[in-house]
Parts: sequence; structure tokens; C-alpha cells
Amino acid sequence: MAEETTHTITFQPGDIVCDGVPHEANVLRVALLEGVHINASCGGTGACGKCKVEITDGEYEGGKSAKLSDEDYKAGLRLACRVKVMGDLTVAIPEESRMGDAVALTHERRPGPGRVLTAQDLEDLVAGWRIDPVVKKIALKLDAPDAANNINDLDRLKLALKAQHGLENVSVDFHVVRDLPLMLRLEDWLVTVTVVERPKGPKVIQVVPGDRTAEDFSIVLDIGTTSVYAQLLDLKAGKTVAEASEYNGQISYGEDVITRIIHSQKAGGRKKLQEAVVQTITAVIEKVLEKGGVDRCQVSHMVAAGNTVMTHLLTGVNTKHIRIAPYVPAATFLPPVRAGHLGIDVCDHVFLYTFPCVSSYVGGDIVSGIIGSGVFQTDKITLYIDIGTNGEAVVGNSEWLVATSCSAGPAFEGGGIEHGMRATRGAIEAVQIDPSTGEPHILTIGGKPALGICGSGIIDTVAELLEAGIIGQNGKFKEAKAGQWLRRNADGLWEYVLASQEFTAAGQDIVITEPDIDNLMRAKGAIYAGITTLLNSVGLDLDAVEQVYVAGGFGKYLQVDRAAAIGLFPEINPERFTFVGNGSLLGARLVSFSKDMQQAAEDVARTMTNIELSDNQFFMDEYIASLFFPHTNMQWFPRMEKILARLGQEPIDESGKKST
Amino acid sequence: MAEETTHTITFQPGDIVCDGVPHEANVLRVALLEGVHINASCGGTGACGKCKVEITDGEYEGGKSAKLSDEDYKAGLRLACRVKVMGDLTVAIPEESRMGDAVALTHERRPGPGRVLTAQDLEDLVAGWRIDPVVKKIALKLDAPDAANNINDLDRLKLALKAQHGLENVSVDFHVVRDLPLMLRLEDWLVTVTVVERPKGPKVIQVVPGDRTAEDFSIVLDIGTTSVYAQLLDLKAGKTVAEASEYNGQISYGEDVITRIIHSQKAGGRKKLQEAVVQTITAVIEKVLEKGGVDRCQVSHMVAAGNTVMTHLLTGVNTKHIRIAPYVPAATFLPPVRAGHLGIDVCDHVFLYTFPCVSSYVGGDIVSGIIGSGVFQTDKITLYIDIGTNGEAVVGNSEWLVATSCSAGPAFEGGGIEHGMRATRGAIEAVQIDPSTGEPHILTIGGKPALGICGSGIIDTVAELLEAGIIGQNGKFKEAKAGQWLRRNADGLWEYVLASQEFTAAGQDIVITEPDIDNLMRAKGAIYAGITTLLNSVGLDLDAVEQVYVAGGFGKYLQVDRAAAIGLFPEINPERFTFVGNGSLLGARLVSFSKDMQQAAEDVARTMTNIELSDNQFFMDEYIASLFFPHTNMQWFPRMEKILARLGQEPIDESGKKST
Repeated sequence: MAEETTHTITFQPGDIVCDGVPHEANVLRVALLEGVHINASCGGTGACGKCKVEITDGEYEGGKSAKLSDEDYKAGLRLACRVKVMGDLTVAIPEESRMGDAVALTHERRPGPGRVLTAQDLEDLVAGWRIDPVVKKIALKLDAPDAANNINDLDRLKLALKAQHGLENVSVDFHVVRDLPLMLRLEDWLVTVTVVERPKGPKVIQVVPGDRTAEDFSIVLDIGTTSVYAQLLDLKAGKTVAEASEYNGQISYGEDVITRIIHSQKAGGRKKLQEAVVQTITAVIEKVLEKGGVDRCQVSHMVAAGNTVMTHLLTGVNTKHIRIAPYVPAATFLPPVRAGHLGIDVCDHVFLYTFPCVSSYVGGDIVSGIIGSGVFQTDKITLYIDIGTNGEAVVGNSEWLVATSCSAGPAFEGGGIEHGMRATRGAIEAVQIDPSTGEPHILTIGGKPALGICGSGIIDTVAELLEAGIIGQNGKFKEAKAGQWLRRNADGLWEYVLASQEFTAAGQDIVITEPDIDNLMRAKGAIYAGITTLLNSVGLDLDAVEQVYVAGGFGKYLQVDRAAAIGLFPEINPERFTFVGNGSLLGARLVSFSKDMQQAAEDVARTMTNIELSDNQFFMDEYIASLFFPHTNMQWFPRMEKILARLGQEPIDESGKKST
Repeated sequence: MAEETTHTITFQPGDIVCDGVPHEANVLRVALLEGVHINASCGGTGACGKCKVEITDGEYEGGKSAKLSDEDYKAGLRLACRVKVMGDLTVAIPEESRMGDAVALTHERRPGPGRVLTAQDLEDLVAGWRIDPVVKKIALKLDAPDAANNINDLDRLKLALKAQHGLENVSVDFHVVRDLPLMLRLEDWLVTVTVVERPKGPKVIQVVPGDRTAEDFSIVLDIGTTSVYAQLLDLKAGKTVAEASEYNGQISYGEDVITRIIHSQKAGGRKKLQEAVVQTITAVIEKVLEKGGVDRCQVSHMVAAGNTVMTHLLTGVNTKHIRIAPYVPAATFLPPVRAGHLGIDVCDHVFLYTFPCVSSYVGGDIVSGIIGSGVFQTDKITLYIDIGTNGEAVVGNSEWLVATSCSAGPAFEGGGIEHGMRATRGAIEAVQIDPSTGEPHILTIGGKPALGICGSGIIDTVAELLEAGIIGQNGKFKEAKAGQWLRRNADGLWEYVLASQEFTAAGQDIVITEPDIDNLMRAKGAIYAGITTLLNSVGLDLDAVEQVYVAGGFGKYLQVDRAAAIGLFPEINPERFTFVGNGSLLGARLVSFSKDMQQAAEDVARTMTNIELSDNQFFMDEYIASLFFPHTNMQWFPRMEKILARLGQEPIDESGKKST
């Protein structure tokens, strides 16, 4: 892959330099994600006209909108949300586009955003793998039979696989035999044989006429409790062709894994849950095939990574004892199963490889993340955090790995949040609030009219509300801040307006409510407590962690300092953080490309140990202490301590309650 | 198995001694099968009252019937068809129960019937095997999980299989995992695990709660072109529990394999043929389960032996190229397939093992027969003949085996014969004809009113008609013999009445027609020509054959001398002949009991070579020469030559045609 061209933007006033800006990036987006404030009420659609800037130097494109007067345009002003970066730029932000007072640009610059990886970076995370899929298409030319050599078709095929490709001890799927005579003869004894490498030897799963080796695709899936992500991979080219996602259809049977286990024990429940997720999978497969322009029949393999419960439910396996002490799953390594057998609409010969799990609450998604992020190869003590409906944390390196899991709820994926949504087009993904006026400035994914708020937007909103003093450390709105953006709804409950109806595609104002904030507090509290419990169990301090990998559907957009502001992460050096995005999908992708990586995944699953948090008193204490923004114990939050002190917040005593 | 008690019967006049008569045998049956004549028009049902005998010495039971007058009974007469042998007997056959003149008892005694095997004899044919099925039920007690050992259920199972039974490298069928948690816990961690040994290691195919190892059954099938035979086996006891048979439902799509191949190539044809035989299998399974009082769920394995075409059609495999030179089957070793997947109504976990085949026309039924009869172990040069719709012949011993196959048509199984039927209750299985009067005397299977004629009955009838001079060597009736039993039917065609309506359950006279005789001639001609061509191909003479094993649905009842009379076999020493009955079923049974035998079957299939008869000119010449009773060349038929000479038949010249 060619190196991507990047540019540098210098924002004025303040000489704020942003390096590594991708070619054709959007100026408003760069500013907001780097913590540089520019007003924006419409999410970056050009509709509010508030993000006027002057580009004093450098090459760019665009910047016009109906909202920018001719006069302003002639005066050199542009709308930041319409400007594409084509070279190094100097961007001056005029008074009118800044926050009500100078605080945004003058108060201490927020720490950097952590390392966000390019596609190439992601591939480079893991060393030493090459494209050598466990499922392979092989072109084979056979000798036609004659009276002197009229051995049966099946043995003829096996002998050719041995002679031409050195494959020994080959078994052949029963279904292949049925039409083998026709397949062999249709294109004059030239065939394409699909072979899957199994621990007990190679197995032929399909034979079709002609040389079809150029068309070889796989589908990899991240089966999350809340969302299902799919990638369509070109196995020959080693490339991702298309991506898609959907909410997991099982949501209607419960938002967390426990509720779903309970539902699965009702009459017909297991089948319903299985069908629900299969329907979702069918939908995402449909999408990636359409996006990629790939025919269903060209897909020869599927890999799915999910937590243990999702893996069981997808394959229709009994989950009952996952929920009951001593928390025993039916299996951590599921035998391969024909995808069609599960109702997934792919060709009959396609097998679904489900990622091996570690235990009831440390699943294949984590194993996949550890593979995909290269943690299994590193010397450094690494903390791997996957933030989803289940939050999982792993600590270790190439020598040892210890994992744990806690239920965070779906808040980070937009679930259980009044205007929550997944991180797709139209989601508010970044938010800044003017502390002097309480006015929100928002950025949406794709610069589209806002539809809702995704996980990173929710974190930003709460962090900003906190730093603006609009909510207290307990997550409750302060009545004194009532006004245009903080108001009571029809039921008399407080809500904060992030985007007014005129700038949304939601047909209404997009707001955040106290219950939303409460959900977020419990979610971040569980994850933070999980991390500290995990580290405590292996006798390590947060300082001992040399690097932190953060995975999750929203991961790429999450800003370390915003996450630290609400207490999801401790305030450690942001440079130690790397955002890998969907780690589960990342590993599934590698495993689909490389049989060595499949072996590595199985080794990781076998060797990883597991700390159980249920009935763990240390965790319970940590969790209770975490139900505060950022935390009742400010030891790991010095920056927030300062900000909150500046806002005149009362100090917290050791019991974790406010002293007044 | 305890040795069977046998007795000796001495028939008078003539001091004809029959040894080895089974306890409780029927006197009429013993007499007719040993070539001792006693009149019987009703097949042995007690309805005609013709088989009066006087038992002058020994222990017996029965002998009464409404047809025996009190006067006769007081005079010491009994009906032979109603007498059960309970000890050594002397039986006097009075004048009135003998043939019209003394010829039957005075003419040269016919040679013995060849060796007919008891169940014990059959087991003794094969040495060194023991009950050790490839599919086994294992009782397993597991430790319940606790917090210290909460490994997943599947690994717990695998570890226990290894620790308690030394099973390593175990794979587990996906379906087993789904309800494994429930199965393990239902009877407190005591389970029965069904394991199948595969070339690549053991595979768990079922886990059920409790110790169910006592209930372990298999079903073995002989899938013949005309008939399907099933046995239900108790794998634990090593016993056959029940047997059943049905005509193969595929018959309605053609009587021979070629017609069926052609039909299978029509749209939907392959599916229809598969469904037809599966329906038949379902019916025979139903029967054996009912007879055996065994629940469907207790069956854990199925083995099917059939010719190559039957094996392909049962499993839905393309047969097209079996019929086209160079005669290539899709596969000779089919991968195991879930029986339920083929539509066979057994539990989902049951796999169907199909016997390996050798080539397009030497199938798994022959391999099975070679195993079941012990030919693969013998030092003696052995000729193995399987007489069915396809006639197959194998020559060789433990060192080498050469096979061939020819299409005989269904005549030997009662197919294509006006009143033909399979060898089941009510079938006329033995026939004697009084040469002086032309009167038939018949014996039916089970002593039931006649329903039709089975293969051995047809052979007997034609042999007797020939020896009585009622048909000529060309198989045509002699008008001069017209009378009560030889008559013209409504269409003016000749037919011979074997049983008159009053003694049948057929609702009409049971007759044999000229087309029936013609069908038999072509059937026996093909088999005889196959044998001589096979021997010629390996440079052996009939004299070099040290033993002959004859298999076939009718095999046990067939009499060597009757078969030689029509020219099905040469007149070699009858003591060299052994009748193994259904050889295909015999081998399938062994393979179901013993994994070593399965291995042996695969070795035989791999090493047996094959002589192709299509386009073989030697075979065609032999076949044409065989279309005569017994043959145009009387070299191997000295006894028949004498009898025919006595009847005043014209000698045959070397060209194979009558000289006049």
C-alpha cells in the first residue's frame, strides 16, 4: 500500500500545529478532533454557517455554502466544514467563530488524541504473517480417463492433488462427490478445488469447472452483543473489499448477554435468538456483497468472532450454564459448522469458523483483538481494552495474557441512550461546549444532518458538560445552567439540546438526558473497575502498563482526554494509547487471510487465563468508587482535578461521597 | 452359540439316510431338499393330504390334518408336511405317496445339496474377528465443575475420554455440542458417548444422559437392484435380532442398473431414484425394529452394501459415466454420510457407512461377500458367485482376487417371471416333477399356501421339466406332454401349472410360462459365461477351483444338482459348493460388528482387480453357447448328458446347435 500523503495545519490564534492531517481531510473535523474549537451547530453540513475561517496560507478546495455571504467570501472567509485540505495550511479562526470567551483557545491545550491507525498501520501491527488462507482455491488439470486408466473420479482427483500440490491424506466432503463427474468433465478436466486445512488434514469442500481461482472471497464478522460488523475480503489480493454493519437483531430479546441467556431458555427462545442474529448477518452480507460487487458464490469461507455468549447463540448452543456459577460454557472451541446449516445465505460448501473463546466471559472477540492488534507478539506490557456492551480487558504480552470481562451495557454503541445510534453517517461523533455560554458545537460523521449521537459523541458531550460545569460529578444537571440548551422536557425532566431540529435529519431536537448520562456513568464505571481489578490481580500498577490498545466500534473517533475526563480511562500519557477500531474484526480478518494466524488465535485462546469478576469483592468496591465523574479517587485524574477545582467543585472525601 | 442338535432320518424304501437334520425340522421339507420324493400338491400346508408317510421308528410331533382320515391315522399314517422331527427317525413312504412309477426312488440318487450353513457355520467362515464395532457406546462419569475447575463442557468430555478410555485426538460432531450442557447434567455427569472410529481419529457423534451402553444396535443393509435386505444387529451381544426384506422401490424405474442410470439422467430422475430406495429402506427398517422390539433411537450405526450403481443412487451420486466407456464411477470409497441427510428415518447422529466398491460393475456387495464368506482369508483357490440381478463372480484367495460382473436380470429373485416372488413365506422353493405323469410336487417356504415361485423354485421347476422331458434343451414346451399340467393359456401360449388355485393363496393357478423359462435361460447363461470368462482370464480351468461359494437371496435353498441341470453351474463335485445365503449382508454384518473387518473390506476393495465384460468377445461367445439347457458344450455336464440321452435328446454338435 502506498504511503498516505499528509499535511500540517496551523490554527491561529495560538499557533496550534496539527501534524499528519490526511490529504483531502475536512478542516472542521481536524480542528474538532484535535481539540481546536470552531463553532458549528449543524454538525458540519454547511447549514448553520457558523464555522467561518480565513485560510491565510496553503492549498485547499471548497469552502463555499449558501450560508456564506458574497461579502464574507470576498473578504477571504470560508466555511471550515466545506474546506478540503490539499496541502499545508494556516487557518485563522476569527472572533465570531470562536467560543463566547477566549477560554477554549487560551485554557491549557488538551492532550493529544492518541495514535489513530491507518489501514497500513493496522496491517503493520502484526508481524510475520503472509497471505496463506486456511481455505484455498486450487486450479487442477486432470488427465482424462481411458480404458487403461479408468480409476474412479474421486481417486483421480485425490491423486492429482497429491501429485500437483503435495496434498496428502485428503478427505472430501460428501456433497462434493455427488456431482463430481459432471464438474470434472464440464471444462475438459480443468477444475477449481476449494480445500480447507483442518487439524486432521486437508478437506475438499467444493469442485467447480474451469479455473476460478481469481475469484476467492471470504466474509469476516464481528458478532457484537449490540452490533454486527462484516468485512468482505479478497483472499487472492489480500484486500478488504467492503464493510457494513447492523444492530444485532437479538437486541429485541434483551440488551445484554444475561437477558439473552435467560430468553434463550424459554421455549423456542434459543432458536429465535439464533434466527435473529442470522437475519442480521444475512443483511450485512447482502450489503458487503452489493458494495463489493461480488457474487455470493465466490465466497468460500466465513470467520466470526464474538463473545462466548454470542458465539453460542449464533451456533444454537445451550448457554444456560454460562450464567450460573461456576460459569461453564458448552465449548470454547466449537467444531466448524456449515454456514448454510445455521441458515446463513451463502453457498452450501462454506464453513463458518468461529473464533475460539477463553471462558464464559472472555470470548472469541477478545482473542481476535489480541491477534489483530499484535498483542500476542509484543514484549511490552500491554493493556488491551475492548469497549462494547461487554467491556473486556486483557493485560500481558507475548509471554502471558490475563483477561477479564464486565458488563458495560450498550451505551458506548448508542444503545440505551435516547438519541443514541451506531457510529454511522449522521451520528454526532464529536462535541465541544462553550463553557461561557453552554452552547454546543458538533461534528457529524460524513458531515450529514445529525440523526443521533454515537458513543464518542456521548463521551464528548458528557466530558464537555462536566468541564463546562453544566453537570456535576454525580452526572446531574445544574438547574442554574438552564437556558437555551438546558431545559426541562414535557415530563419535567432535564435535557440538554445538542442539535436543534432545524439542523437535524431526526425531525426533532437531538438531546441528551440525565438517564443517558447515568447509563454512561455505569458503563464507564464497569470498564474502569474491570481494568483496575485486572491489574490488581496480576500485581501491576497503571504505571506499569507500557501501552494501551483500545478497541471498540467507536474506537477510532474516541479522544483519550475526553474518555479520561469522564473516568473511562486514567490520565496516563496519551501517547501510550493506540486505537485499533474494531479489534475483533481486525483479528478475524487476519485469521481469514492466514492459517498461521488461525493457529496463533487457537494458541492464544488456550493459554490466556481469566479473572472472574462476578462475586469479586475488589471489583464491586472499585465499581462503586467509579460511579462518579471521573472517579471518587482522583489519584489518576490530576488534570480533571484541576479543572473541577477551577469550577469550584467540592473535593471528594475518601468514602467516595461529596463532603457536603 | 450352543451347537445345534441334529438328527438322522432314514427314508424307506431305499435306505436313504439324511444326516444333520435340524431339531424340529419338517419331514416333507427334509425329504424334498434331499431329493427324496414325497407327493405334495399344496406346498406343505396339509391341504392336499398327499404326503402320507409311516413313521416306523423314532420321536416326532404332529402329523395330523383334516385331510388325514381317522382310519389312516389309526393305521399309523401321518402327513409328512405336519411332522416335526424330535429325534432320529425311520420314515416309510408308502406307494401312494410316491411318484407314479418307481423312477424317483430307483433312479440314480441325485448328488448332495452342497453345504448349507447354520448361523454358527456362517460366523465360523471368518477367523480371528471379535466384536469391536467401529461405532461404540461408552459410559463415562465426569467430575462436576467447580470454581477451581470450570473448564468448558466439551473439553471436560474430551479429557475424560482420554483419561478413562485412552482416546486421543477426538473430534466432536457440531450437533453434539449444542445440548451438551444439558446432557451432561441430566443424570449427574453420567453419560453415554457414541464414538465412531474414523481414519483420522475418533469422532463423538452423540452424548446422552445415563448409562445406555446396553442398548446399542446397528442396521445393516444389502441394497440389491431387485431387493433390499436388512438385519438389525445387537452390537453389544453380537447377535442378529431381526431380518426383513422388500423389493427395491426403484424397480418401477427399470429392472436393471442400466435402465436406472438412464432414468437418473432425466430431470429430477436422480432424486426420484434416491427417494425410491430410501422409501424401501425406511420400510425394512420399520420392519426390523418392530420385529426386534427395538426403539429407533437405540440404533447408532448403519452399514449398506450394494453394487456400485445402487451405492451411487442411494447416496444421490451421479452415475452417468458408469455406463459410458471407460466406465468410470464417481467414487468407489464414498465419504460417510449422515443417514438422515439421505432421508433415512433414524436418529440424526447415525452415519451410513457404504461399502467400498472396486469398479463400476464390481461393487460393495461383492467386497462384502468376500469378507463375509472368509474368501479374503483362505489359501484355497475359491470361486465366489453372487447370483442376483447383477451376477458377479470372483476368483482368488487371500493373496489375490479378480472379479467380474454381468447382467443376469432379476429372474433369480423372482423378477420378470409371471408368478415370480422373493424367497419369503408362501414362495414355492422346491419342486419335483413325476417324470411318468408330469405331476408337480411342491414345497413352500413356511408351509404356507403358495403365493408364487422364488428363484430356487424356478430353477427346480425348469430342471425337473427338462429331466422329465416336458421342455427341450431350447427351453420350449413339448406339445406331446400337454395334459392336466401343461396347457395353453387364454392367449394360446404354453404354461405349466405348478399349483392349482385350490392350494394357493394367489387366487389363481400358479404357472410357469415359456417366457419365464427364456428369462431364466438368459440369466443362467450370463452367469455361466461370466464364470468361464473370468477363469479363462486368469488362466484357470474349472478343475482348479478348490471351492465354490454361492451367494444370493435364494442361495440357501438352491440345490447344486438342480442348478447344474439347467447349466447355471458346472457339474463339479457338489461338496466343493458352500451356500452362504446373502453374502452381501453377511459381510455388512461383520463390518458392523468389527472395525478390523471394516479395514479388511477396504483392503479388499483396494486390491481386487476387475475384468470388464462389455465388449469382451470371449464372454459374448461363451454367453451365446450358454443359451441352451444346460449348455451347448456338454463337457462339464456329464450327468445331464446321460439323462438327456436316456430321454432320447439329440446330441449337440460343436457349433452349439442341434444337429438336426
